[in-house]
Formats: sequence, structure tokens, C-alpha cells
Amino acid sequence: MQLVTTKRLQLLSGRANLGLAREVAEHLGVELCETNLSEFANGEIHCRFGQSIRGADVFIIQSHAAVDGRSVNDAVVEQLVMVDAANRASAERVTAICPFFPYARQDRKAEGREPITAKLMANLLDSAGAGRLVSVDLHSGQIQGFFDGPWDHLTAMPVLCDRIAELGEDLVVVSPDAGRVKVAERYSIALEADLAIVHKRRIRGEKSTVQAREVVGEVAGRVCVLIDDMIDTGGTIVAAAEQLLARGAEEVYAATTHGLFSGPAVDRLKNSVIRKVIVTDTLPMPAEKCIDKLEIVSVAPTIARAIRAVFEDTSVSEIFGGNNLS
Amino acid sequence: MQLVTTKRLQLLSGRANLGLAREVAEHLGVELCETNLSEFANGEIHCRFGQSIRGADVFIIQSHAAVDGRSVNDAVVEQLVMVDAANRASAERVTAICPFFPYARQDRKAEGREPITAKLMANLLDSAGAGRLVSVDLHSGQIQGFFDGPWDHLTAMPVLCDRIAELGEDLVVVSPDAGRVKVAERYSIALEADLAIVHKRRIRGEKSTVQAREVVGEVAGRVCVLIDDMIDTGGTIVAAAEQLLARGAEEVYAATTHGLFSGPAVDRLKNSVIRKVIVTDTLPMPAEKCIDKLEIVSVAPTIARAIRAVFEDTSVSEIFGGNNLS
Amino acid sequence: MQLVTTKRLQLLSGRANLGLAREVAEHLGVELCETNLSEFANGEIHCRFGQSIRGADVFIIQSHAAVDGRSVNDAVVEQLVMVDAANRASAERVTAICPFFPYARQDRKAEGREPITAKLMANLLDSAGAGRLVSVDLHSGQIQGFFDGPWDHLTAMPVLCDRIAELGEDLVVVSPDAGRVKVAERYSIALEADLAIVHKRRIRGEKSTVQAREVVGEVAGRVCVLIDDMIDTGGTIVAAAEQLLARGAEEVYAATTHGLFSGPAVDRLKNSVIRKVIVTDTLPMPAEKCIDKLEIVSVAPTIARAIRAVFEDTSVSEIFGGNNLS
Amino acid sequence: MQLVTTKRLQLLSGRANLGLAREVAEHLGVELCETNLSEFANGEIHCRFGQSIRGADVFIIQSHAAVDGRSVNDAVVEQLVMVDAANRASAERVTAICPFFPYARQDRKAEGREPITAKLMANLLDSAGAGRLVSVDLHSGQIQGFFDGPWDHLTAMPVLCDRIAELGEDLVVVSPDAGRVKVAERYSIALEADLAIVHKRRIRGEKSTVQAREVVGEVAGRVCVLIDDMIDTGGTIVAAAEQLLARGAEEVYAATTHGLFSGPAVDRLKNSVIRKVIVTDTLPMPAEKCIDKLEIVSVAPTIARAIRAVFEDTSVSEIFGGNNLS
Amino acid sequence: MQLVTTKRLQLLSGRANLGLAREVAEHLGVELCETNLSEFANGEIHCRFGQSIRGADVFIIQSHAAVDGRSVNDAVVEQLVMVDAANRASAERVTAICPFFPYARQDRKAEGREPITAKLMANLLDSAGAGRLVSVDLHSGQIQGFFDGPWDHLTAMPVLCDRIAELGEDLVVVSPDAGRVKVAERYSIALEADLAIVHKRRIRGEKSTVQAREVVGEVAGRVCVLIDDMIDTGGTIVAAAEQLLARGAEEVYAATTHGLFSGPAVDRLKNSVIRKVIVTDTLPMPAEKCIDKLEIVSVAPTIARAIRAVFEDTSVSEIFGGNNLS
Amino acid sequence: MQLVTTKRLQLLSGRANLGLAREVAEHLGVELCETNLSEFANGEIHCRFGQSIRGADVFIIQSHAAVDGRSVNDAVVEQLVMVDAANRASAERVTAICPFFPYARQDRKAEGREPITAKLMANLLDSAGAGRLVSVDLHSGQIQGFFDGPWDHLTAMPVLCDRIAELGEDLVVVSPDAGRVKVAERYSIALEADLAIVHKRRIRGEKSTVQAREVVGEVAGRVCVLIDDMIDTGGTIVAAAEQLLARGAEEVYAATTHGLFSGPAVDRLKNSVIRKVIVTDTLPMPAEKCIDKLEIVSVAPTIARAIRAVFEDTSVSEIFGGNNLS
Repeated sequence: MQLVTTKRLQLLSGRANLGLAREVAEHLGVELCETNLSEFANGEIHCRFGQSIRGADVFIIQSHAAVDGRSVNDAVVEQLVMVDAANRASAERVTAICPFFPYARQDRKAEGREPITAKLMANLLDSAGAGRLVSVDLHSGQIQGFFDGPWDHLTAMPVLCDRIAELGEDLVVVSPDAGRVKVAERYSIALEADLAIVHKRRIRGEKSTVQAREVVGEVAGRVCVLIDDMIDTGGTIVAAAEQLLARGAEEVYAATTHGLFSGPAVDRLKNSVIRKVIVTDTLPMPAEKCIDKLEIVSVAPTIARAIRAVFEDTSVSEIFGGNNLS
Repeated sequence: MQLVTTKRLQLLSGRANLGLAREVAEHLGVELCETNLSEFANGEIHCRFGQSIRGADVFIIQSHAAVDGRSVNDAVVEQLVMVDAANRASAERVTAICPFFPYARQDRKAEGREPITAKLMANLLDSAGAGRLVSVDLHSGQIQGFFDGPWDHLTAMPVLCDRIAELGEDLVVVSPDAGRVKVAERYSIALEADLAIVHKRRIRGEKSTVQAREVVGEVAGRVCVLIDDMIDTGGTIVAAAEQLLARGAEEVYAATTHGLFSGPAVDRLKNSVIRKVIVTDTLPMPAEKCIDKLEIVSVAPTIARAIRAVFEDTSVSEIFGGNNLS
Repeated sequence: MQLVTTKRLQLLSGRANLGLAREVAEHLGVELCETNLSEFANGEIHCRFGQSIRGADVFIIQSHAAVDGRSVNDAVVEQLVMVDAANRASAERVTAICPFFPYARQDRKAEGREPITAKLMANLLDSAGAGRLVSVDLHSGQIQGFFDGPWDHLTAMPVLCDRIAELGEDLVVVSPDAGRVKVAERYSIALEADLAIVHKRRIRGEKSTVQAREVVGEVAGRVCVLIDDMIDTGGTIVAAAEQLLARGAEEVYAATTHGLFSGPAVDRLKNSVIRKVIVTDTLPMPAEKCIDKLEIVSVAPTIARAIRAVFEDTSVSEIFGGNNLS
Repeated sequence: MQLVTTKRLQLLSGRANLGLAREVAEHLGVELCETNLSEFANGEIHCRFGQSIRGADVFIIQSHAAVDGRSVNDAVVEQLVMVDAANRASAERVTAICPFFPYARQDRKAEGREPITAKLMANLLDSAGAGRLVSVDLHSGQIQGFFDGPWDHLTAMPVLCDRIAELGEDLVVVSPDAGRVKVAERYSIALEADLAIVHKRRIRGEKSTVQAREVVGEVAGRVCVLIDDMIDTGGTIVAAAEQLLARGAEEVYAATTHGLFSGPAVDRLKNSVIRKVIVTDTLPMPAEKCIDKLEIVSVAPTIARAIRAVFEDTSVSEIFGGNNLS
Repeated sequence: MQLVTTKRLQLLSGRANLGLAREVAEHLGVELCETNLSEFANGEIHCRFGQSIRGADVFIIQSHAAVDGRSVNDAVVEQLVMVDAANRASAERVTAICPFFPYARQDRKAEGREPITAKLMANLLDSAGAGRLVSVDLHSGQIQGFFDGPWDHLTAMPVLCDRIAELGEDLVVVSPDAGRVKVAERYSIALEADLAIVHKRRIRGEKSTVQAREVVGEVAGRVCVLIDDMIDTGGTIVAAAEQLLARGAEEVYAATTHGLFSGPAVDRLKNSVIRKVIVTDTLPMPAEKCIDKLEIVSVAPTIARAIRAVFEDTSVSEIFGGNNLS
Repeated sequence: MQLVTTKRLQLLSGRANLGLAREVAEHLGVELCETNLSEFANGEIHCRFGQSIRGADVFIIQSHAAVDGRSVNDAVVEQLVMVDAANRASAERVTAICPFFPYARQDRKAEGREPITAKLMANLLDSAGAGRLVSVDLHSGQIQGFFDGPWDHLTAMPVLCDRIAELGEDLVVVSPDAGRVKVAERYSIALEADLAIVHKRRIRGEKSTVQAREVVGEVAGRVCVLIDDMIDTGGTIVAAAEQLLARGAEEVYAATTHGLFSGPAVDRLKNSVIRKVIVTDTLPMPAEKCIDKLEIVSVAPTIARAIRAVFEDTSVSEIFGGNNLS
């Protein structure tokens, strides 16, 4: 018995960011596979797919954020449960799409007796049966090495740059922290813009804990764009913005891939000197976080093109310019 | 360089049921190892141990329940993070203690395209680096086969039976459901009590969906004790109790290892005909669930003895009578 | 160099049940792949395939029973050897078909210091290189969780029910044991028939070892069909049948998926009050076991449809109604 | 809680060669651990240990031969089942002792589409949980590379040589086949004896299938000792002996580690020109195989010393002279 | 979204034997995939592929020899690095082609406390992500068992025999060593030629270390061809050739698959009595080794046919006659 | 048979940096285990241990550098071969000590179709059987996540700082590159010194490829110490030093953990404006590299203390202050 082999793409989504998943599906011209996700009374997640995925090339997209009363860990376990179910339902291959990779900041032991939770997350996905990963703008490029299967590392830089370029002519790209200069550098090259750095400096003669923010580079009278891969509580970026204004910057903008906007972030940004915050939709942005100065650009076309390339075995590098972050 | 080898026990606990962990520590005569657990602003869990556990025989206890605003999946991920941290901190061996094993009811595919989440949980613990497991009264004995390392399967039956035996002389042990007869049978043998079964029966001549509960065995004028491994929403057990009274039972009690008490459970039990509900502390029991008719017996001594046996390599079978549930 | 990918199905069989394998091949419209199986002088099995299976989707069917002077373990090792040979011969994928999964009853530790041999069997098949399994009516649904690849769990219930339905109008489905009620319940629903249970009861006032069989449900004057997943020595089912007659049953039949018929089984069944025993061909049925009251229905069409669905990536759930036995 | 670590040796045995196991136990000064091995009615093996082996250094000895109505595959599965049970019973480490490693001759693909069953066996032992192996005189030294844990490769050469040396003064060690010269060479060096070879030679001018045995080396008037690692059906060794006599050998003896003595072997040896066959007890030797000219020397002291060295972490090389058979 | 699956062959090469790789590519009618290989200043190898290999069936050919100032270990690591890169670049499958498998002679522990480096090499290739191997004339057939994926074992015997057959009519195939008789035997059968053996013999009466080479078989007045799988320093083969001449051989030739020609080999061969050395191109043959009496036959067509068969899933056995070298 | 368990430390060394290994041994008060390392004629490495290491806690130290005509890959393979041999010789546990972790700079995919060779190296060590790693000052902290066993990450910062502190009073710690600021920051904190940065800046208005080095921070009239984890060809650090002088720095020093000193490095440093280069002995420093301005401080005491802590299960964090680099 002989057969010409065909393959079939199935796109599935967890519940954390259905908006993004639906937009990706639209760009691909497919329907999201029907997936019944619910909780047992004690909060354990139940999953059942409504259609056969036997032999399909399955992509399971999940955003890793607390939303709708479910925690970031609920989102993690939900995706693992879906991956397990897809494998037991005879999927040909399962790709887990994590636009924002969970626990990416815990990518090394800053001190002894700590976990390396980003590695743990990669191990869990592997153990559940994900054969391949797709992410956008990992916190550090080394995280790609935490997984031995292929991990397509996309970047939101082009879609963010398209929008940033409209902010002015003589832009200065600013890193809000000494540790993130490499990312800002990449943007400054792409935008053909100058680079500046806000960094912390110890004030001598006083106690060693006293630190002051200092600006490196010419910002006076110019439009500054603070760049970081993520904004969590917003503390660093807001303080950096103030410093830039103090040094005579004309206007300050902020752009980031991952808008976590946790805890005091929304209030801080709303009340800050930052004119506009440009962010992508790798994470869900509930209405209460959508303040006026927020502008969202979508990575859905980027993810959709990557899925199509993975499915059709065409080059991702050629589409995205081969740029693996950091 | 030569050395006589010694080993050191370290007991660590997640945050879901610190009361149980402290009681276990007390029975063992050890201190809980200082563990700093907290959340990043976006809800990701951070963990750091306050003491060296290098070379230690580490036991990490966690209850798998939603409590204090953290979900059952938060509890799962917290334990995985702790196991990862313990391994990277050079623990000699890591034993995960899950008094109530999470997702135990999803131990098979009841329908196609479902996960087997209990197996996934065992795989995740293995992947994080747990070399051995300890649990109390697994939902089905087959779950032990989901893990290839040793899994000590303890039972709360002795501590529950001690209390049940005080409820009366001529007891009837009742299974609330046809699928759980095996467990009730075991209790009836241990208590030298009669066995009865409440099961659902199709009423013929009518639509096939009509079902009625029926009681098998003599219950009239006798003290009945409904037995199950867990009570979740309480629906089945409360309905079974009503049926027993309708058949002339004098009094109805309920005993269970795992008191999940989710959703409507507390109200249902409070308003039910059940006189008393006997439960263990495998899961945390917050104040609002501690209704008057609830009586808690502790499995802490049981778990402590198992830990000591594992640490000292003495027989667990001899302590517990070799009874592996189901 | 580019190529349209095709795939090719190859069906191979061990020696324990060639009749079934040939019937499956016929239903698929393929030839069994030529396989040379023999023993070295000391009983070690030798295997060599007569045709190239490079790149093929290989299915290796084996029944796990003692037959023709070879033991059940010979059957196990023979299948493992074939799986190893198929992988080294560059099969694209190897599916092991075990209509009766060996050692399925040892699926948990009933006591301490026992193996979980069903898990060991799944591990051995995995280790030899089987990427996927197919079985009929597993002893417990949890066994599916013993294997992390896909395991298609077929059921003989439809073919058995077709035959059972012809036995009479007002049937009662009877479970011969308290622990097997779930399976009987499923048949009673499929047949729209009543359910009864034979269970053992302790007689009080006497020594605790005295047990008597008791019947739950109305059987007087009706046609009873005892249902179990397997009949080994036949002791339980024959005793249950006697009890049913004693309670006034008009006629008693027995139906089972796996006819092991070990030791005294044939004599017991021949001399029993059971009118007819309906069984499938998951296990070989040598002439000396084919007593008059035995009726065999074939699972070959069921297995053939599953193989075709696996090969063509069509839904198994849709064919079989999604019923995974538990 | 701190403890000085101790370790405990437990010796377990399968049923194929209890005599050897008991002798090993005696040399070690230990009791065999009580092990209940039996068959289910359908031939599946059941195993339960009678004593706690928690934390013990467990050695499981099994001979791989058909004996007492059980096949060589029964012996293989029996050992795997015991290894699984020992791991689930919390053994600290499990060493499988296979004095004759099963399927050792299938250690390469002599032709395409064959298994490499010796590798499969090593994989199965690994998969069941054996962390270490011990064998005597492997068919080829390369087999040691089939297992990634430590594999102590013992040799019966010293005990055989002690006996061979008594056969005469001016011995000639003879390889019965061109492919086994290396082993004979090793004996000739140990015995300080001459080497001769019996090999097959094509007779030219005739059809290529005609082969004649030829002897290389001086054997006339001398005492010849044929050496091989195993004697299976005895065909090769008996034919070689005849050839040696034809070339004027005074007497011919045979010595071998593994006495499989399958099929016609006993009759062939009994009726052969071979004076005496010296063999070890790596395989069971039932009464009907114990012909007059057979002489058995025991490897029990060798195995016992290896077990003690493994248990006490002393050098095996120093005891055995570092000779790993090739 | 559905797609007919196609596959694409990509051939990549390390730097040790680009000549062979280019010839293989030519036979296949493909271009070598552009691969940028270079060293960091400290000698660490860097690799980047110039074209997309996403979804391709990738074959990575490397010869394992010291050449161009790079050691054999550099060649090993270079191939591992390429395999890692190919997997991370989403190759569908990676086949490592090692015409001469490195460290093949260390295929067993000749003494205690040695590695089994051939097994280590197979493990490293597996760990880097090679799913399949292809080699020519492994030093021992058992090495195939060191890898659990498929390993196509090609032989250069046909191309060598074609050339050997032209050397004369009444050839004698000679094994230069008792341990390599099996290989010579295979050539003698293929060439329908007589077989002779040069082996070492202890001279009695003197110290045991004195050994003399002896010839078995009729060589006087005939054309002898010494056969071995590899020639390293050439010591054994040159000494054997002298012995053959001393016994009256008319002419002596040597043929081998793998021409390592290390250290004194070139001088030894040049000055030896050997008329001609026939060798294949599994290893690079730099100009300084190409002495007059050397004749190179190419295995490129053999490797190309194997690659095509692997890519197209046609039988390798049928092409090559199923001969797996042992 | 029962035994008090003891453990024994065995220190082994590859050939790349025997000086360091001997110094470590001296600090531990042990002898290096006799290890016979040599090459086959074709460059394959052979290894045999001269003493029994059965049951020992084995530490295998190797520096990863080209030295004595052996390449960095020779050093890598040599350590892997030793790890394999140690496992097969029944070491209880094998710790690989890589003071400079090889390929650490290839810790991410800077572009598509590249390997992550640092991950490959960790995988190879794992696959060879290393259960634990020890390194000094990894290029990025994330690399620790490339290995799932424990990896003790030591730092040379204390021994370097002790020497740096003697260079002057009012020191400025300088990062030679924007990407390495984090490391310099750590030194500036430890030394209570100011921080400066040399970074590259795009000069606008001209072609985008024109870059100029710029200095951030006050350096005029002060003593500057350039800090980096490694110096390879010395290009960056020498250019940075020139820039510092141009900005008025009084004196410039350089300090680094890993002195690769490849290619032009020695000449560059010798001829540079740098007064003194302080380096550790993680890598061998042959005589020709020991220029006058070079000063070597030893990490041998650091490594010895770590080994002792690992062996005795005492806290490494407490010894080293818990500082995991980056």
C-alpha cells in the first residue's frame, strides 16, 4: 500500500491571548482548531480537541501572562497539557509558540541555590513533547541553547522600527540600563540613529549604596526613544526618561517588545514624562492597561510568516534577515 | 583523600500547606530548610534556599491545591522550580512529596484527543530532577507506573479507620459509586464491617438518560460510612447519603483522604444529611472550609515515618503493612 | 535533488497468531512482508526480513500467548527482536500491534516489592524502538499512560455487541466481580440492557475469610450475559454463572475480548452452566480449545481499519466512536 | 538529621541456575534473598521479594538457558522483571549478572535486515533499570560497548587453565575455527603451550561450495586441547577433533566456558573421539547432559570475588589480572 | 492548510577530504551546500551554512584523518559542530557519513581502565543529533551495534576486487595476522582465490617473548595479495610481505580500504618488497603520500549510491549485495 | 553483608595544563592519579589509568587550549575519552573541571544556520558521562543552564582583585566594550572603584561602517584597569588602552581571567601602552607567551577548595561568597 504524503497545518491556542492567535490564523488563512479548555472544580485544567489532528503539523500558541484570573503558571501548564494531548492524539510534530518565553529573566544563577527556571521551562516543554519552539525577542540569545530541537527566534524589531521611524528625524536610541546596551545598539543600527545610555553610577566619598543615574551620549534638544525587550513594573524606564528630560531631551518615547505592565506599571507610565509607549501584542493587553499613550503594533504577521515557513520548509532567515536577537 | 560517607536530611516545603510541612518536620525532629519563595511582578515564581543543601537527601513537600490566591498550577510549578533549584544546588537526591498527586483523575484518556495529565505531571517531576516520589492514596494504583523511579505510595487508611471505628459498632462501609467499590471494600475488610454500594441504574422503558441511584446491601437501621479517596464538589457523596437515609440508614458519615472541597462543596456538606465528614490534611483546609461537622486527622506522622524510612533505608512495607492502594 | 515523498505500508507478523495477521492483511489488501523467524539451537530467536522495508511505515503484529511450544515470553521477545531489526533496517516508523497487551494485569503494585510489569513491557517496546502502539481492550485505561508515544486503544465492544444482541430481547449484562463493573456498565449502555453485579460478600459472625457470592440486580427469568475483558482460568466466570442460575436466571452466556483459556479453563467452561462463550481472536485459539459452545468473532476488520487510519492519518476516533476503554 | 552511610549487599537469583547462585552466595557468606517467582496461568511471570531491599546494593544473577520447561526468553524476561521490581522497591543500585550473556552471537548484522540482538538485550537491561552488568567470557569483547554503564567482564580462563594444565605436559591449544583464533591464542599464552588451528579450505577446481578442514600447526603425537568460548550443538568441535586425530594427534580434549549443549550436542560429544570435555557452570547442566566424559569446574568463586570487589569498590583488574576477553 | 510533502537532499562536507565529497556530489548530480568553516584565533572551529537547509535531508560527510595541519580530533569536532548546526537550522534528518569511522580500533577494552572510544564516538554523534550513520568497512561489524539508529555499512570490497582481479590469474589472498582472517576469507571467496595466513608463533624452549612469523597455505611461485581493512604504520603488512617472499611467493601486492599511512608508513611501503598498494579514498591522500606504487580506487560511487538509496528509500542491501562486513 | 560507606577522591589530568593540575593536587594534598595518555600513529588518543578508580569520586581537569602541538579540539576529545574511561572503570561519580570552558563564545546563534557550540560541548560532556562540571568565569552566566547536572561556577575575581588593588589608590575599572559592562561593574563594586566604558560609536553623516571608540567616565589623570573575562588576539583591549591614554589616563593596566593570547596577541600586548597584564593560569602559558609585562596569579587554590567542598559536601557558596559570574 503506497501513498503520496501530504501534510496539514493545525493551529491551536491556549486561552491567554486568543486575540493574537486569531489574528495569526487570519494571516495564515486557516481556522483555529476547536479546543475545549476548562477547569475542574479544583482548578486543574482539562483539554480536549474538537477535531482530529492525527498526522498534522501542529502549532500551539500561548501567551505567558496572568490574565482573566489565571496566573502565568496556569498559562504554562495549559500549554504543556495541550502539547501532551496533541502528541497522544498522534500529531506528526508539535511546535510550541511562546511569543514571550516564560521565566526568561531567570536564565542564570544570579546567586547560589537558585533555579535556572528558563532552562526548566525548556525542559518541561521538551518533556511534554514539543519538538520545536518559536519565540519573539528572547531576553538573552543564550536561552536558545536551552533546547536541543530547533527554536525559531523571531524579532519584533522591524515592526517596532517602522513605527519608531515615524517619531522624528534626528532620533536618539537610548538604553535604559548598562546591561541592555546590545539591544539598543541593534535598534540604533537599524534606524541609523545615534545611541545613548542611561547607567547607574556610584557616587564616591559616600556610602557605597548611593547610586545616581547618568546619561552617556548627546541627548539635548533631541527626540529620545528608550528601547528594552520588556517593560515589567516600568520603574527603570520611567526613571531613565526623567533623566533624559533633565539632560535636555526634547521628547522621550519608549518602545518594547513585551508589555508585561505588572503592578504599578500602568500608573507609572500614565503619569510619566514618556509621550508614547509603543509595544507589541506578544502579551495580552486587557482594556484597563490600554492607556491613551499606549500604541500597539502586532507581531501576528511575523508569527504567521514564521509558521508558514516552518510548515513549508522555506527559510526563516531569508524572511527575517537572519537576525537572532542578542 | 578518603572519607566516611554521611548523609543529611533536608526538608523543604512549598507554600501551599506549610502547616502540614511543619508538623512533618516536628515529627522528624528537624527544622524546615529556610526557603525564600516569592513572585516577580508578573507572577513568575522565584526561589532561593537560605542554607546549603549540597550533598543532602532533600525532601520537597508541596500540597497541590489552590490556596492564598495561588492556583493549583502555581503549586505545581512552585514544586518544579524548587526541585530544579535543589538539583543545581548539588542535592544528592531529591524526593518530591505530593500528598495529593495533582491531576490524578486525568489518569487515562476517557475520550480521544485528551491528555493523560497525571502522566504529564510525573514526566514533569522527572524532567525537573525528582528522583523519587511519595504520595498518599493515589486515585488509581496504576499511576505508580507513570514514574520509573521509586514511588512510595502511603495510605491514610489506618489513621482514618482509627477514627471511623469510634463512630459505632455495627458499621456499614458504603461506596458512593460503582467505580469506587474497590476502595470501600478495602476499608470494610480493615474495619471488619459490612459493605454496601450506591450505584446508578437506568430506568427502562424511558429515555436512556434517566438514571436513579440505587443501594445494594443492608443499610436499614445501621450506621453508614461513605468512603471515597477524595471529595471535590461533594455532589456524589451528598446524593449517596440522601439515598442511604431514604433506605432507612440510622446515621450517615463520610470519610475521605483528600478534602478538595471545591466550589459548592462546603455549602453542600454543611446542609447535607451527613453527620460528620472525616478528612486528612493532605490538602490545606483554610478557615472558611472548617465547618463544624468537619473533623481533620493528620497524615503528618505517616509522611514523617515514610521520610525517615526512605532516609534510613528501612522498609516502608513493614511500617505500613505493604498496602498499596487499589 | 528534490522528491515528492511517498509512504509505503508494510505489515509484519510474529508467529503466535499468524491467522489473525493474515486476516488483517486481507482486509487491508496487502501481503504480509516475508519474515524469516527461527530459533538457534539453544532457543534464541533469529529474525531476518525477506524484503526491503527501508522508509516504510511498518506495523508488527504479535499475539501474546503461549502457543506451538513457545511461551508468552517467547512471543514478547520475538516482537522486540522484530522491532529492533525493523529500526536497523531503516523503517520510517515502527508500530507494535499487541491485540492483547502482555502482563496487563500487573499494572500496579498490589503489594510492596512487586514489579509493574505492564509498565516494563511498554518500556521494553519503547527501548526496542516502537514509536507507536495499538491494542484492543486494555485491562485498565491507565495503561495507556505507560507509553509516551501515541497508543491507539481499540475496542472489540461493537463486534461483541453485534453478536450479543442476537442472544435475546430482554438481556441483563452482568459483571462477574465488583472490580469490573465499569466495563459491564459500558456494555449495558451500548446494548440498552439492564445491569447486574455478582460480588463477594463477607458473612458476619464467622471468620473473616468466609465469603459468599451475591447477586445485585434482577435476573430471575431473564437472559444473562457475563462480561469481562478476559477469561483466564475461567474460575470466576463459571462461579458467577452458577450463582445467576441459582437466582433464577433463564440462561447464562459469557462474552469476553481476550480468551486466554489457560490451565483448567477449557474443561471448566465445557462443563459449566454457561450456554455459549463469545470471544474474539486477539489471542490464538488452537483446535483443542475450540469447544462446541465457543463462538469466535474477529477483530481483524477493527485492527485493519485502525492500521489504515494510522497510515493515512485519518481519525481513529471517528471510526471507532472515540471510545477508549477504561 | 545526619547519618553515617552504610551499604548492604543483597543477592537475588532467577530460577534458571539456582545451583550456581547458591554456590556464589556460599562463597560470599550471604543468604540468597527470598524471591517468590511463579507463573500466572497464561505463563506470565510474577515476582515478589520476601525481604526489604530498600537502599541495598542488589545483584540479580540469572543464567540464560532453556531449563525446566522454561525457554531462554523466559529466563531473559524473568531477569528483567526482577530488575524492575528491585528498582521500584528502592534498591540503591541493581547489577545484573549474566554469566552467559544471551544472544551474544547476534552481535552484528551478518546480513541486512537482521537485528543486533545482543545490543537489544543490553538496551532492555538498561531500560529495566540495571545500572551495571557482570558477565563471563563474552562472545566478542566489543559487546562491552553495547552498554554505557560499567560492565565487569570476567573470564573463566584461569579456572579452566588450572584443569587443562593437568591434562599433560606438551599440550597444543587448538582453535576449531579460523574466526576464534584470538581466544585460543590467549589460552596458549597462559598455558605456555603451542597453538594450532583447524580451518576450512576451499578445494580449487571444484565447485566453490566444497570445503575441507585443514590443520595448521604440529599436532602429531601430541595432546590437543580444543578451545572455544561456547559449545552449542557440538558440530564444529567434534569435526575438528576428528581432523586432529587424522593428523596424528595422540589425544584430543575440549574445554569451553559456556556449555549450551543444545539439540544433538550430548549425543555427538558422547560418541566423539574427544576424551574429555571441560566446561564451567555458567549455564545449568541438568542430569541428562552430565555424560561421563564431562567435567565441570565452577565459576562461582570468580563471580563471588567480582561481586565482593564491586560491593567493596576494590579493583576487579587486580583480582583477575585485567584480562578482558576479546 | 494542506501540502504535498517533498524532500530535498543537501550534501555538506567537512574540510578533511573535500576531494571525496566533491566526487560524491558529482555522482549524485548535486552541488555541495556552501559551508563556511574557519577557526577562531584560539583554534575553536566556527561553522555557518550559506544556504537554507530547513526541512532538508542533510548528509554531512567527513573524513577522519589529520590533514592540512588539523588533527583527527579536529575532524571529529568539526563534524559534530556541523551536525549541531544542521539540527538547529531545522534539517529534517541528519546523516553523518564517516567513510573511515574514527577510533574504530578502540572498540573494546583490551585491558581494564580503558575507554571504548568507538562507542564514545557513536554516542557523541548521537548526542550532537545525527540520526543515521554511513560508513565503509568498519574495523569490526559489532561497532554497528554502538548506535541505535540505522547505520548503513558499505564495503569497498567490490571496487577493490575489480582491481585485484587484474593482478593475475592464480591469486592467493593473504591475511597478514591471525586476527584478520575473516576479512581475507571474504575476499578469497569473492575472488575465488586461495587463502593463506601469516601468523605469529611462539618458539618453544626459549623465552616466551620470542615470536616468529609463519605462513600457512601454499604461496610458493604464486601471486599474493595481502588484505587488511586498514594500513596504519605499515609495519605488519611489510613484515608479512617479506615472509611471503621468503616462502617463495612470486610477487606480493597489498590492498586495503583505509590508507592511514601514518608516521613511517610511506617510507616503509616505498622501500618494501610490495609491488603495488591498492587503497581507496576513504581518507585523504596528500601528495607526499602518493608514492609511485600506490594506486587509488574511489569509493565515491559507492557512497553516492548509498546516499541516493537512503534519500529515495530504496534498498541498500540490493545494491550492495547485503554484505555487512564483520 | 553490610559495610560503612567511605569515599575516595581521585584527581586526574589531561595533558594541556599539567602545571595547574599538579598545583591543585598539592593544595589538596593528594597525588595525581597515574594516567597514560598517548596517540596512535594516526593521532587518535589512547588513555589508560594506572590505578584502580573503582568507586572513587573522580575529578578530571583539562585546560582547553592548543599547546604542545595539540589543538583545542584534541584537548576536548582527550577529556571526553578520559570521562568515558572513568565511567567504564566504575567511578562512583565523574566531575569534569574545565577552568576555561571551550567554545564559550559560541553560546548563542549570532546569525541563522550557526551551531550553539557551547551547548554542544555541555552535551558531549554529559553524553560521555560527566555528572558534574566545574568552571571558572564562564563567558556568560546563561551557559550554566546548558547542563542539567550541577555546575560549580567559580570566579577568579577575588585573586585578581587582590593583585589589582595593589596597582594604585584611585583606580578606574574600565570595560573595553559595551557588551562587557556587567563584568567590569562587578569588579568596580568589589574594588570600590569608579567605572568607565570604552564603546564604539557611529559617526553620523558618513558611511554607516565608520566607527570610533569613545570613552564614557572620568579617566583623565587616573590609573585605569581594563577588565575582561578573556583576552584572545588582544585587538580590542589594546585599542581601548590607546583610547584611554588619549583621554588623559595616567597609566593603563589590563586584567583578565583567561589568557588565550592567540595569534598576534603576544606581540600586540608587548608593544602596547598597557603597563602590565594580570592573568590567571586557567590556560597554559608557555614560555614564549610569558612576556615581561605579564603577571600570573593562580586559580589552583580556588579550584582545590571547590573540589574539597564538592567531595566533602560543604557549601561552595560560603567559600566563594555565592558569586556566580554575570
